[in-house]
Amino acid sequence: MNFASDNTTGAAPEIMAALEAASHGQTMPYGADEATGRLNELFGGVFETEVSVYPVGTGTAANALALSTIAPPFGAIYCHETAHVAVDECGAPEMYTGGAKMMPLAGEHGKVPAASLEAALDAVPLGEVHHVMPAALSITQQTECGSHYSVREITALAEVAHGKDLAVHLDGARFANAVAALDCAPADVTWRAGVDIMSFGATKNGAWAGEAVVVFKAALNREIAHRRMRAGHLFSKMRFAAVQLEAYLANDLWLNNARHANRMAARLAVGLSSVPGVRLVHPVDGNQIFAELPEPVLSGLLAEGYLFYRWDAGGVATVRLVTAFNTRTEDIEGFIETAGRYGA
Amino acid sequence: MNFASDNTTGAAPEIMAALEAASHGQTMPYGADEATGRLNELFGGVFETEVSVYPVGTGTAANALALSTIAPPFGAIYCHETAHVAVDECGAPEMYTGGAKMMPLAGEHGKVPAASLEAALDAVPLGEVHHVMPAALSITQQTECGSHYSVREITALAEVAHGKDLAVHLDGARFANAVAALDCAPADVTWRAGVDIMSFGATKNGAWAGEAVVVFKAALNREIAHRRMRAGHLFSKMRFAAVQLEAYLANDLWLNNARHANRMAARLAVGLSSVPGVRLVHPVDGNQIFAELPEPVLSGLLAEGYLFYRWDAGGVATVRLVTAFNTRTEDIEGFIETAGRYGA
Amino acid sequence: MNFASDNTTGAAPEIMAALEAASHGQTMPYGADEATGRLNELFGGVFETEVSVYPVGTGTAANALALSTIAPPFGAIYCHETAHVAVDECGAPEMYTGGAKMMPLAGEHGKVPAASLEAALDAVPLGEVHHVMPAALSITQQTECGSHYSVREITALAEVAHGKDLAVHLDGARFANAVAALDCAPADVTWRAGVDIMSFGATKNGAWAGEAVVVFKAALNREIAHRRMRAGHLFSKMRFAAVQLEAYLANDLWLNNARHANRMAARLAVGLSSVPGVRLVHPVDGNQIFAELPEPVLSGLLAEGYLFYRWDAGGVATVRLVTAFNTRTEDIEGFIETAGRYGA
Amino acid sequence: MNFASDNTTGAAPEIMAALEAASHGQTMPYGADEATGRLNELFGGVFETEVSVYPVGTGTAANALALSTIAPPFGAIYCHETAHVAVDECGAPEMYTGGAKMMPLAGEHGKVPAASLEAALDAVPLGEVHHVMPAALSITQQTECGSHYSVREITALAEVAHGKDLAVHLDGARFANAVAALDCAPADVTWRAGVDIMSFGATKNGAWAGEAVVVFKAALNREIAHRRMRAGHLFSKMRFAAVQLEAYLANDLWLNNARHANRMAARLAVGLSSVPGVRLVHPVDGNQIFAELPEPVLSGLLAEGYLFYRWDAGGVATVRLVTAFNTRTEDIEGFIETAGRYGA
Repeated sequence: MNFASDNTTGAAPEIMAALEAASHGQTMPYGADEATGRLNELFGGVFETEVSVYPVGTGTAANALALSTIAPPFGAIYCHETAHVAVDECGAPEMYTGGAKMMPLAGEHGKVPAASLEAALDAVPLGEVHHVMPAALSITQQTECGSHYSVREITALAEVAHGKDLAVHLDGARFANAVAALDCAPADVTWRAGVDIMSFGATKNGAWAGEAVVVFKAALNREIAHRRMRAGHLFSKMRFAAVQLEAYLANDLWLNNARHANRMAARLAVGLSSVPGVRLVHPVDGNQIFAELPEPVLSGLLAEGYLFYRWDAGGVATVRLVTAFNTRTEDIEGFIETAGRYGA
Repeated sequence: MNFASDNTTGAAPEIMAALEAASHGQTMPYGADEATGRLNELFGGVFETEVSVYPVGTGTAANALALSTIAPPFGAIYCHETAHVAVDECGAPEMYTGGAKMMPLAGEHGKVPAASLEAALDAVPLGEVHHVMPAALSITQQTECGSHYSVREITALAEVAHGKDLAVHLDGARFANAVAALDCAPADVTWRAGVDIMSFGATKNGAWAGEAVVVFKAALNREIAHRRMRAGHLFSKMRFAAVQLEAYLANDLWLNNARHANRMAARLAVGLSSVPGVRLVHPVDGNQIFAELPEPVLSGLLAEGYLFYRWDAGGVATVRLVTAFNTRTEDIEGFIETAGRYGA
Repeated sequence: MNFASDNTTGAAPEIMAALEAASHGQTMPYGADEATGRLNELFGGVFETEVSVYPVGTGTAANALALSTIAPPFGAIYCHETAHVAVDECGAPEMYTGGAKMMPLAGEHGKVPAASLEAALDAVPLGEVHHVMPAALSITQQTECGSHYSVREITALAEVAHGKDLAVHLDGARFANAVAALDCAPADVTWRAGVDIMSFGATKNGAWAGEAVVVFKAALNREIAHRRMRAGHLFSKMRFAAVQLEAYLANDLWLNNARHANRMAARLAVGLSSVPGVRLVHPVDGNQIFAELPEPVLSGLLAEGYLFYRWDAGGVATVRLVTAFNTRTEDIEGFIETAGRYGA
Repeated sequence: MNFASDNTTGAAPEIMAALEAASHGQTMPYGADEATGRLNELFGGVFETEVSVYPVGTGTAANALALSTIAPPFGAIYCHETAHVAVDECGAPEMYTGGAKMMPLAGEHGKVPAASLEAALDAVPLGEVHHVMPAALSITQQTECGSHYSVREITALAEVAHGKDLAVHLDGARFANAVAALDCAPADVTWRAGVDIMSFGATKNGAWAGEAVVVFKAALNREIAHRRMRAGHLFSKMRFAAVQLEAYLANDLWLNNARHANRMAARLAVGLSSVPGVRLVHPVDGNQIFAELPEPVLSGLLAEGYLFYRWDAGGVATVRLVTAFNTRTEDIEGFIETAGRYGA
C-alpha cells in the first residue's frame, strides 16, 4: 500500500467519465470551447464572486504563473521556508517571474506567522534599490506540514501584506482538504480574507491533471493569458482540462473526496498514536500525517511493503503519510495493525 | 463541419481506453511509474536507436523546452519565417531559452532552403559579440504550409547546420502525417538525417495531450529534466501522459490515423481543384490544404456553417483546411459539393 | 586616420577636466552625491520639462533598460530592421525584458514609416495570445543610416504607437548630432513629439562613458531604479558618470561638438561626391556617410592606412565613414584628396 | 569625515593620470585597443598563470556575469548568508543566470565553513529534479564582515565544491585588502586554492570604475564575452576601463593602497577598543570594522558629523567603519578621540 503521496492515485471515476464524454465531437481549440467557457461562472459560483480561471498542466505551473503576475523580476516573494514554491519546484517561480527572489520565513507547522512577515517587511529599507522589492506573499493551504491556516490567520497575513502593497497568493494544491477540514465557505479562506490569486489543485484529489490559476483581483487578468501561452500551458484541446475541473466541482465531488481523505488521515493518526514510541510531529488537520517512528516500526512497515517518504529532521526518523480520495479503511487498519505489531 | 484545425478533434478511442485503464491503481508520481518507464524503449524501437523521451503538456512546451537545451540566451535560432516557434507561441522559445533570438528565413512552401541557411550563417561575423551566436536550426515537419521536407532536404540542412556547430531541432507537431506521406522510416527523417532533438506531437492526431521531446543526441539529456520541471511540465500523474503516447504508437495507430487524414486531404484537394477559380497555394503533401477561393465560394461555405481559418496573403482570400484522423468521407464530399455549388 | 566610428575617439578636454575635479574628496555612493543630484534639473532645463535621468555604462544598457520598462516579457517591440537594438546588441533587449521580441520593419534610409508601423499593428489580432503583445516602438535618432527623423515624422509615428497603447522609445546614441542638424529644441524631437523615454548618448560625442536613460513619462520611474541596479549599472562612484553628463551639457558643449562633427561630414560628403564613381547611399544629415566606392578608391584608401568599416549591401562595395567632435579639417581633406587620386 | 564605505572615495592620482593619458588619440572600440589588449598578460603576471580579463562597469556586474557562466538557470549557488550577491545586488545574479537560486549558508564572521557546504550538498538528493541543481560556490574575500579566508580555508571549500562538480567563484570587491593582509601570492588565494573565476575589484581601492571578471578556468571563456555584451557591459571606449586596471596593478599601487587602508583600520580598531563599552564584533583583518558602540558614543559621533552605516543585529547598536586608500591618520585619530570623549 502506497502512502507516499495523494498524487500516487489514479483518477476518480466521475472525472474519467467526463473525459470520456469530452473525447467525442469537435470544438474550437485553445479554450474557445463550451466547457472552458463555463469555468468562470462555475468557479464564480463556488467562490461567490467574479473570478477568472486559467487551467494549466501542473500545480507548479499554476504557482509560477500566478506569482509571475504579481511579482516583477526584481521582486521579493515571501513564503514559508518549507513552501513548495521555494524548495520543490526547481526554480519555476524564478523562471516565470524572470528572477524574483523567494524569501523564506520560519514558522511552526508550516505556517507563516503574521508577525514574522511584518518583521521581515519592516527590515527592508524603503526604496532601497540594493534589495529586491517586496512584491508578494505566498501561503500554502493545506500547508506542507498538513496544517491549515484559519480564516483569521489568513486575514491577518493579508492585512500585513496589503499594508505594504504586497499581493497575496495562495497555493491550493490541497485546497479541498483545507476547506473540508475548516468547514468554511471557499470565499472565506480566499478573497474575503485577502487572497488576490490562487492555485487551485484538483490533481491530488481525483483529477489526472486538473490545476488552474483562479484570479480574484480583476486587474491581474491583464497579462496572465499571454504568460500562460508562452509557458506552454494553453492546451489546444483545453476542453479536456476544463471538464476535469467541472466534474470535480459538480455534486461536491471535490469536498466529498477531501472529506474522505481527511477522515482516513484522522483515523490513521489516532491509530498510530496508540503505538508506543510514535509521535505526531504536526497536528493532523487534513490528509497528511508526519510521525516519528521507532526504528523497529519503520523497518517493519518497509519490510511489509508499505510505501511512504522519509521526512527526517534533526536526525529523528520521521515519515510522511498521505491519504487520498480513494484510500480504503482496510489500508488504514492494515497500516495501524502492522505498526502496532512492530511497536509492541 | 470544422476544418479549422486537427486540434478541433477529441481523442481517438484507443487513447481514451488507455487513459481509462491508467486511472486505476496506484503508481509512484513524476514519471517513476511503469508506463513512463517503458517510453524510452518504445520510442527507441520506433526510431531504431537509443532515445530519451520527455512528455510535456503542449507542443509549444515541447518546442521551447527542446530549443532551450540547444540554444543559450545569447544564441540565434534559425527557422522558417512561418514557423510556429517564431510566430505562434507568444515568445515561448524566448522565455525558455532566456532570450535567444529567432532568425526567420524565407523559403517556398514553408521550407528553409539549405542555401538560405548557409548564406545567413556566412553573413554572421565569427566571434563577433555584437551579434547573437548561431546556435540552432529549427525545422517543421510537416511544415506550416502543409509541405514535407524530403530526407535529402533535411540532410542538406543538417549538414550546413552541423558544419557551423548548430544543433538541429525538428518541430513534429504533425510528424505522423509527414512520415505517412513520405512512407519512410521515422529514423530516416530524423536522426539519420541529422536531427538532434525533436518535438513529437500526438495531440493533433488522436491524443488529448500527447506531446514529448525526443532526444537523439545523448548529451542533451544533461539538463532537460530540470528544465522541464521548472517549466511546470513534469506531470505528477505522468502515467496519463505516457499511456497516451503508448497507445498512439501501438499497432501503428499513429500512422494509420495520419494516413487517413492525408487521404482525406488528398481527396479534398482533388475535389476543390475542379471548382472553377479555386487555386491550391501549396502542394498538398499531408493533411493541410491552402486554397484561394473565389468570393462566392468562400461566403457560400461560411453561410452553410463550415468552419476554417482565413490565411490571406497579399489581399487574396485564402483559407486553410485541415483534415484529421476522424474526418469522414461524407464531410469531405459535402465540402466539395458545397464549394462546387457556389463556384459554378 | 580612423573614420570607423565616433567611438574611436578619446574624451573631450572639458569632460576630462570634470572627471579630474570629481576625483577629489568624498561623497556618498550610488548616486547619493551632489553631481548626480543635479542631473534631473539639468536635463529638465535642456528638455524644458520634468525628467528623470538614470546614468548607465553603455548605450546598449540604456536601450535595454529603457525597453525593459515599457515592454513586458511577452511584448513586441517594433523598430527599424537596421536598429542597433535589433541587430547589434547581442540580444540585450531580450535579456533585460525577459524575452520580448523585436519586430523589424523596413523603411528607406533607416527610418520606420508611420504607415508601415500602422500596417504591422493592424495585422496583429487583438487579444490573440499566440502572438506577442505590441508594447513599444523604438526609433533611432540619428538613424543607423545617418538620416534624421523630422519632428513631423516622429509625431506621426508616436500617434500611431500611442493609438495602440505602445510606448515610444528613442535611441539617442547620436542624439546631439540630430538636434544640431535639425536645429530644433530637444523637446521638439522627443516628448513634445510623443517620445516617452530615451537613451541619451554622450560617449560618441566626447564623453568616455556618458550614457543615460531619460524618462519623460513619470510613471516609468516606478521600476527603473531597481532594474538598473540588478543589471549592474548603478555605479558606486556615480559622480564620475554624472559629471561627464554635466560637462557635456554645460556651455552647449554637446551641440558644439555635434555641429563640428556634422560639418566635417558634410564637407567629406561634398568632397567625395566629386570623385568619379562614388555614390552616396543615404542623405548625409549628420555625422555618418555611407558611400559606394569604386574598387581602386577603396583599396587605395586602405593601402594608405585609412580605417573604416565595410557596409556592403547587395554585393556593392560600400563603406561607412563617421566623423566626430575632434575630426580635423586636414583629415577630411586628406581623405578626399586620396580618394580623388585613386578615383581619377 | 566619512567612514561609510571605501566607495565614498574619489580616485587615486595614478588612476586619474592614466585616464587623462588615455583621453587622447584614437583607438578601435569595444576592447580592440592596445591597453585592453595588454590586460590578459598583465593579470597573468600578477596571478602567475594564464587568465582572461573582462572589464565591466560595477562589482555587481562582475559577480552576476561570473556566476552566469558557471550556474545554469536551474542551478543553485551556495554562498554565505551575508554575501553581497545574495542580499545587496537586487537579484542581479538571478537576472544574469536566468533565475538560478542563491543558497545562503550560515558561518561565523562572514565565512562559509567547508563542513556547512558539505552538509548542504549532501542533503540534496542526486538527480532529483524538484530541487535546483548545485552548480556553484561563491565566496567573498574580504568577507562582508571584514574577515579573510585563509588559503587553507579556501582550499578546503574548493575541494568540497569540486568534489560535487560545483565551480568556485570569488567575489573580490576588496581582494587587494585581503591579499595585503594575508601577505600571500594572489595565486595562492585564488586558482591554486581552487578558484575558477573571480570578480576583481579596483573601485573601492582607488579606481573610479575598475572591475573585471578574471577567468582562471579556460573553458569558461566560451560564453562570457557574449554574455558581457548583452548585459551592456562592453564599453565602446574600453581603453578607459583598461587603463584604470593597468595603473592599479602598476608599481604595486593596488597593494600599497590596500596596505594603507588596512593599517588605518588596525589603528582605528585598537583605538576604539580602548573606549569603554565598545566591542569589536568581528576580527579586524582588513579595512572594515564592525563595532558595538554605547549609545552616547554613537550619538556623539553622529552629532559631530561622522558618517557611517548602522549595522545593527539583535537590537544592539552596531556600526560599520571602513577605511580606504586615502584615509588620513588624523581622521582616525579624530574619530578615536571623539569616541573616547563620549565614552568616558
